[in-house]
Amino acid sequence: MIKTDILIIGAGPTGLFTVFEAGLLKLKTHLIDALPQPGGQLAEIYPKKPIYDIPGFPEINAGELVDNLMEQIKSFEPGFTLGERAETIEKLEDDAFVVTTNKGTQHKAPVIAIAGGLGSFEPRKPPIENITEYEDKGVAYIIRDPEVYRDKRVVIAGGGDSALDWSIYLANIASEVYLVHRRNEFRGALDSVEKVAELSKLGKIELVTEAEVKHLHGKNELEAVTIKHLKNGESHIETDYFIPLFGLSPKLGPIANWGLEIEKNAIKVDNSYDYQTNIPGIYAIGDVNTYKGKLKLILSGFHEAAIMCQSAYQRINPGKRYVMKYTTVSGVSGFDGTKKEAKKEVVKAIS
Amino acid sequence: MIKTDILIIGAGPTGLFTVFEAGLLKLKTHLIDALPQPGGQLAEIYPKKPIYDIPGFPEINAGELVDNLMEQIKSFEPGFTLGERAETIEKLEDDAFVVTTNKGTQHKAPVIAIAGGLGSFEPRKPPIENITEYEDKGVAYIIRDPEVYRDKRVVIAGGGDSALDWSIYLANIASEVYLVHRRNEFRGALDSVEKVAELSKLGKIELVTEAEVKHLHGKNELEAVTIKHLKNGESHIETDYFIPLFGLSPKLGPIANWGLEIEKNAIKVDNSYDYQTNIPGIYAIGDVNTYKGKLKLILSGFHEAAIMCQSAYQRINPGKRYVMKYTTVSGVSGFDGTKKEAKKEVVKAIS
Ligand SMILES: Cc1cc2nc3c(=O)[nH]c(=O)nc-3n(C[C@H](O)[C@H](O)[C@H](O)COP(=O)(O)OP(=O)(O)OC[C@H]3O[C@@H](n4cnc5c(N)ncnc54)[C@H](O)[C@@H]3O)c2cc1C
Ligand SMILES: Cc1cc2nc3c(=O)[nH]c(=O)nc-3n(C[C@H](O)[C@H](O)[C@H](O)COP(=O)(O)OP(=O)(O)OC[C@H]3O[C@@H](n4cnc5c(N)ncnc54)[C@H](O)[C@@H]3O)c2cc1C
Repeated sequence: MIKTDILIIGAGPTGLFTVFEAGLLKLKTHLIDALPQPGGQLAEIYPKKPIYDIPGFPEINAGELVDNLMEQIKSFEPGFTLGERAETIEKLEDDAFVVTTNKGTQHKAPVIAIAGGLGSFEPRKPPIENITEYEDKGVAYIIRDPEVYRDKRVVIAGGGDSALDWSIYLANIASEVYLVHRRNEFRGALDSVEKVAELSKLGKIELVTEAEVKHLHGKNELEAVTIKHLKNGESHIETDYFIPLFGLSPKLGPIANWGLEIEKNAIKVDNSYDYQTNIPGIYAIGDVNTYKGKLKLILSGFHEAAIMCQSAYQRINPGKRYVMKYTTVSGVSGFDGTKKEAKKEVVKAIS
Repeated sequence: MIKTDILIIGAGPTGLFTVFEAGLLKLKTHLIDALPQPGGQLAEIYPKKPIYDIPGFPEINAGELVDNLMEQIKSFEPGFTLGERAETIEKLEDDAFVVTTNKGTQHKAPVIAIAGGLGSFEPRKPPIENITEYEDKGVAYIIRDPEVYRDKRVVIAGGGDSALDWSIYLANIASEVYLVHRRNEFRGALDSVEKVAELSKLGKIELVTEAEVKHLHGKNELEAVTIKHLKNGESHIETDYFIPLFGLSPKLGPIANWGLEIEKNAIKVDNSYDYQTNIPGIYAIGDVNTYKGKLKLILSGFHEAAIMCQSAYQRINPGKRYVMKYTTVSGVSGFDGTKKEAKKEVVKAIS
């Protein structure tokens, strides 16, 4: 059982910054995310795109913002349960909650901060009859560790950035890379499209366009796929892996059944005070919450996280008064023993 | 009469970022600040100190954050009335407001955003009987343009960073620089204290410590000061300027008499919706407002500004529906004709 002060569901920008605000109050944090990496929408949907409305950054790439947040929270040593979906919640008698993931990992905390954004990112699966049977037996929707595919045969499906970029990446690792796409046009960064064209000419990527994977074959594991050519007939490719990259789409999912008040697919909170939900001890911050005037922007989650942590502090330390301190004045003391602080002024005689 | 859509009182971080959020909604802005430079507390109190809790910046100097904000808002071409204090407000029949400064400058706008922080920064004046008579006639509390002092005689008073740094700066500009301080210890950055000691040895700064300026003399303009030496007697220095640098302290000041609901020296707002005050059309954001759970942090003002601008948009464009757009998706179109936007994806055939 993983134990912490604030269990954060969702490692998007809101969840990440919550680690920092909690840390300033000496509260420990642990994050759960369905994605294999932190960053939420920024990491999954638009890591290489610029954002212009983060205060103080005339321009910053989404991926870079995530890296900066990871750096900013590092000294508070957050725990991570990645690649797992928070599935159920249970309230114990001592007022703490236990959250269990789809893989059975259990987490216990007196405060839950749901920073789930638009929901848990789940892969869009192609409509292939027996695909679930092969999951983790040759079929993968997310590439966690590319080394798994070294010297293996891989069939990738999709026509967007992920399919293009992973085909390019795996071209140097896998023994064979097939890229299957319904059209012969791809949608992505110009240099990715050009690079795939080049690797295809060099024979390092086998392009199979105007085609779809229709059937999967294999006894215990995947051994081959059947491809339907939209213009004429079918073909058969022997392969170790089939990786359909049709994007991940967020689904509020199990959280919708936790007894929280839901409105427009989001969780209602008390924005006139502390972003708490109808269940005391469970807060909702960032894109996942709703209230009159809510703006689903990154900067909203930052402010909501700061306010929410003050209320969590009261809950965890009842009766203890917390006096807010400026980081400039008091510095930042990490849980790892590091301390960042402003250079002190001197009081010095001139004689 | 200066006309704009949103008149912002206070050019601290909150006021500056309001320009950006308003600009995204195609609303024009103008700022008034009592200080000669933008940046509020960051520029006036701790420009060279690091801040650690701005989301996305593991560390940033306050002055640099102000510079970044100025860069971020540049293309929205905000107007500035600096070095003037917003003094009175009047509501016209057409529902617009007119705000007049202590120097008589008039501004008209349908929406007022008070981002006044802890108040208008006003100099701490030394208790010298006839000092007000010499204001702008040799006595200055803020150095706006150092060139004014070229080849002039200057007496500076104070023992902190401003007094140290301006003495150093003017040592190369003024013909004579006296630095008068009650003690012989100074409080400031180590290198500033050391530099003053060095310039004093070189005879470029005349240090007068354990002493106070007690009287000012001169017919129409300042001609000399009398110095009281705390240990023994008095002396007399002929000078063109006397610049007491005892810091600026914020005073809510005239805004307190505008009919706004005030609580704990701050303006009460409706934080459950749009940070509007009890007077429709007047909003209060950043350190200047108060509500249950308020955190006087820089990141609070950023979020409040974004929400407030949405409400201002409704007020200025009644009935018009505004659909929020992501800057990453729609880019940022400045009023100066520039456009920042993400590189477009291509849809391209590979043959
Ligand atoms: C194309 C695009 C452009 C954008 N541009 C801008 C912009 O310019 N400026 C701006 O401010 N905003 C922009 N946004 C919006 C911005 O990305 C969101 O406001 C932001 O990501 C919200 O952060 P968050 O941390 O609240 O949620 P998210 O980033 O959505 O992160 C939530 C995380 O929670 C996880 N999660 C949810 N439920 C569970 C569960 N049950 N178990 C495990 N994990 C779970 C998800 O997998 C996800 O990783 C843009 C969004 C998109 C899609
Ligand atoms: C030493 C110190 C360290 C700090 N450290 C941190 C930190 O680490 N993190 C953090 O988040 N915050 C910190 N703060 C607080 C932070 O500086 C404030 O939250 C922030 O400045 C508020 O911004 P603002 O724009 O709302 O107001 P301000 O920065 O106060 O700006 C308000 C401006 O309005 C002007 N004004 C007011 N009334 C009038 C009027 N009638 N006419 C004309 N002008 C007027 C003032 O002159 C001023 O320039 C610190 C503050 C101090 C003093």
